[in-house]
Amino acid sequence: MVNGPLLLTIAVLGGTGKEGKGLAYRWARAGYRVLIGSRTSEKAVKAASEIMTLLEGSASVVGTTNLEAAQQADISVLTVPYSAHRATLESVKDALKGKLLVDVTVPLVPPKVSKVQMPTAGSAAQEAKEIVGSEVEVVAAFQNVSHEHLLGEEQVECDVLVTGTSKKAREEVLKLVEAAGLTGWDAGPIENSVVVEGLTSVLININKQYGSTHAGIRITGAPRK
Amino acid sequence: MVNGPLLLTIAVLGGTGKEGKGLAYRWARAGYRVLIGSRTSEKAVKAASEIMTLLEGSASVVGTTNLEAAQQADISVLTVPYSAHRATLESVKDALKGKLLVDVTVPLVPPKVSKVQMPTAGSAAQEAKEIVGSEVEVVAAFQNVSHEHLLGEEQVECDVLVTGTSKKAREEVLKLVEAAGLTGWDAGPIENSVVVEGLTSVLININKQYGSTHAGIRITGAPRK
Repeated sequence: MVNGPLLLTIAVLGGTGKEGKGLAYRWARAGYRVLIGSRTSEKAVKAASEIMTLLEGSASVVGTTNLEAAQQADISVLTVPYSAHRATLESVKDALKGKLLVDVTVPLVPPKVSKVQMPTAGSAAQEAKEIVGSEVEVVAAFQNVSHEHLLGEEQVECDVLVTGTSKKAREEVLKLVEAAGLTGWDAGPIENSVVVEGLTSVLININKQYGSTHAGIRITGAPRK
Repeated sequence: MVNGPLLLTIAVLGGTGKEGKGLAYRWARAGYRVLIGSRTSEKAVKAASEIMTLLEGSASVVGTTNLEAAQQADISVLTVPYSAHRATLESVKDALKGKLLVDVTVPLVPPKVSKVQMPTAGSAAQEAKEIVGSEVEVVAAFQNVSHEHLLGEEQVECDVLVTGTSKKAREEVLKLVEAAGLTGWDAGPIENSVVVEGLTSVLININKQYGSTHAGIRITGAPRK
């Protein structure tokens, strides 16, 4: 917990899932105040206490409802399965006004999860933007990162492509990527989120074809930090 | 020209452009018989002779019209700007029946080339499939590879994601990727081509933001050949 931007509060909505818990762990470790949100607070409190145990108490992680987490947070990060995407956003959208939403959702449609299938809005992130409205900046990120390596000290071999409604919002999220120990890239406007969300299906395909479990991507030919 | 599958003929339609010429060079070097196609044969003959000079005559590269090239070839590779995509396909589609088309096209819409903008078919490759019909297998590949490094001996630091209408067709094209000295991955059905085509806009964005000129991608976490 060194040099952490202590005043910034991040809500991880649906943070009791593996991806959410992994991201929450990484940000809490970096010194952020983290709120784990869930539909009911019980599961969220349990997840928060698990992360606090992993970090031996030297962090700030609190479990609560999605709504309360979104209300208290500066930045809300949505990590729910696509089936809960719309309902969760509807339930918190008033609390997001004037703030930043980070959408991690991949619109996978089981059982065909290795085939790209986008909602009519173009992508889950664009759909989120439609739901939360013009007063919320929406950034899409972390969709390709396998949860398995987040909840630990391992190096994650997958870059994060960050798309979003403004350059300023993307830069804000690139800081969160770095704080989580990952390499991020500004990948342009929110319309480009279709590529990053769809890439998850491509990576699932590669895992299936080549017997791997956590295929990822890395940007080449550009200067890494 | 060792161990080349000498009997296979590849047509590079629109092969007088930089990307096409680079691919033609690589396949000719690997021992394939290569036909360079263009709207008129003059430019194609000139491009073929340039490649023959680079390879010091130890290859088979012939320039002709797109139609003649497609007629003679086992596999046709389309490397035209998106503005010429439909017209070129219409002009050769009868010659492609029962064969394999590899679409390299990225549907960039100037001036907004760093924003993903797909045709109504979903992607250029899916649009190609609509145009050429059910008797042609369509595979999309090479869309992210910067032409600059193809026409030479340099290692290309960009993997090739191969999507297409059947696994067999994708496997055929993965051989061409390897013959060109690149690493390819089976990235699933033709619907996934939206990701690979769109990735080009993301890479253009990264070049713009980070001052690079040939950003690419590499698959991590899966076994490389």
